[in-house]
Amino acid sequence: MQQPIQSLDQLVEHVIASGIKKRIAVAYAQDPNTIGAIAKAVENGFAEAIMIGDEAAIKLRSTEVGVNPEIFTIIHEPNDQKAVNTAVKMVKTDEADVLMKGLVGTDKFLRAVLNKEHGLMKPKAVMSYVCALQLPKYHKLLFITDTAVLPFPDLREKTAMLNYALDMAHAFGIGKPKVALIGASEKVSTNFPNSVDYAMMSKMAQRGQIKDCIVDGPLDVFLACDKESVAIKGVDTPVGGDADILLFPTLEACNSFYKGLMLFGGGELAGLIQGTEKPVVVMSRSESEASKYYCIALSCLLA
Amino acid sequence: MQQPIQSLDQLVEHVIASGIKKRIAVAYAQDPNTIGAIAKAVENGFAEAIMIGDEAAIKLRSTEVGVNPEIFTIIHEPNDQKAVNTAVKMVKTDEADVLMKGLVGTDKFLRAVLNKEHGLMKPKAVMSYVCALQLPKYHKLLFITDTAVLPFPDLREKTAMLNYALDMAHAFGIGKPKVALIGASEKVSTNFPNSVDYAMMSKMAQRGQIKDCIVDGPLDVFLACDKESVAIKGVDTPVGGDADILLFPTLEACNSFYKGLMLFGGGELAGLIQGTEKPVVVMSRSESEASKYYCIALSCLLA
Repeated sequence: MQQPIQSLDQLVEHVIASGIKKRIAVAYAQDPNTIGAIAKAVENGFAEAIMIGDEAAIKLRSTEVGVNPEIFTIIHEPNDQKAVNTAVKMVKTDEADVLMKGLVGTDKFLRAVLNKEHGLMKPKAVMSYVCALQLPKYHKLLFITDTAVLPFPDLREKTAMLNYALDMAHAFGIGKPKVALIGASEKVSTNFPNSVDYAMMSKMAQRGQIKDCIVDGPLDVFLACDKESVAIKGVDTPVGGDADILLFPTLEACNSFYKGLMLFGGGELAGLIQGTEKPVVVMSRSESEASKYYCIALSCLLA
Repeated sequence: MQQPIQSLDQLVEHVIASGIKKRIAVAYAQDPNTIGAIAKAVENGFAEAIMIGDEAAIKLRSTEVGVNPEIFTIIHEPNDQKAVNTAVKMVKTDEADVLMKGLVGTDKFLRAVLNKEHGLMKPKAVMSYVCALQLPKYHKLLFITDTAVLPFPDLREKTAMLNYALDMAHAFGIGKPKVALIGASEKVSTNFPNSVDYAMMSKMAQRGQIKDCIVDGPLDVFLACDKESVAIKGVDTPVGGDADILLFPTLEACNSFYKGLMLFGGGELAGLIQGTEKPVVVMSRSESEASKYYCIALSCLLA
């Protein structure tokens, strides 16, 4: 495969250079916060946008942000629930490759994705979230999970999270990602139930029950991402301060970690819902235009 | 009181300018990792160091790092357990103001601090840990807890943590610190047991059961520390993106947060064990010389 993708700009370059072109169905698309990023993806040739929502509002808001609405395919549907249903159905029936949330509430949107009969979840799949986090002071991307969905994952859910993160890292050309299972220290103890799961997951990877990766944990963030800390502490770990993937014990831990680094560490990120048949994009209003654009490129890579 | 101390260098300047001079009892002091920082504190006039340990080793290691051992008071005690006991006893009997760990294991050291008869804990106190974290991209210090001790604090422990962090912030001249109780979002829900504790703590502060502070939670890191995020999301919070104190729901969350920012956000920090009669300093080998020096200055401020 190609050289590993090591930054979010390389991700975009790779998607453009590969000639990828994916159809994105945007549910309730009259969203001034995302139209700019979608238009940029269309203009750069890796996306076609099917905008489902109020046609007049889509046209107005596009014009307001300097986008020519004629670059979009618009399907008029003024009701938000119906717009979501139409978008989900188009992805389910292969009329679109990616589902994206527009100006509709996240709860309403995810309920449609999770719907057992008409939704987009793979059978028995765990819904989770993986992000590619870019940090000026780290030498490559860090894939982190779960930033947004699973509050207190159990062993089965952690294993699902790990496999999702591996799928994404593999798609970035990282053949054998190094996975650090994050705790407050490297000590295994029943006082830290997560460390019990981590010991099992490390052994599962060694036994080939989880494939194409190196897994070790518990490790703290220093031992996961800093070779000097590994040397100073003298901890024997195959991750060795060079992690590609950080799996966190709780949503609160992962969420605080990445938000701290977005604010104070110059972080940028792109993430996707996991467990779905096709990529599903949910972005928050507070994300930067750049993050939104990276996120769309990511969804097209994985579609 | 003085202007609030807003950086770790200001902390050192304040300690020096105040004419503070404290006696630090170092348990098993022949520690090449801390001698340099202790010597700097002695040379700058805010500390006297009582080095308890193997006299020859203390002298040798001091010389090795370019420190004249004559600036220290040395008490010869070649056994590590006895050295710890002597140091704890000196602090307990007011022959010293601060206890500091040298080349002895943290477990052995803390067992002596926790000893019911001879130790240093206040009656019925919760042991916890508070750090002052300095970030180049934040406009003041962030006091964070618990980075190191309490894995899964309950309401009583969280309240103790909060009061410790308040004591430290008040000592830095912050009259009414803004406290953000950190979650993954601002939503209160029984699905997030920590948010239940946070709702109670917010109300306790409003009722005056916790004094001289503004408390709000749950808040995510964006809403705690970024005014723009508060404006975009339109969340009504008296912390308003200007937090002085972040209280985290678990050790794993706080630990990952600060270690990420030490590695990737240019962070520096100084922290102390909480719940003790006098300041207790435990530093890890991997901390920078600067962090160790700040930590000693902090202990002298609070002694």
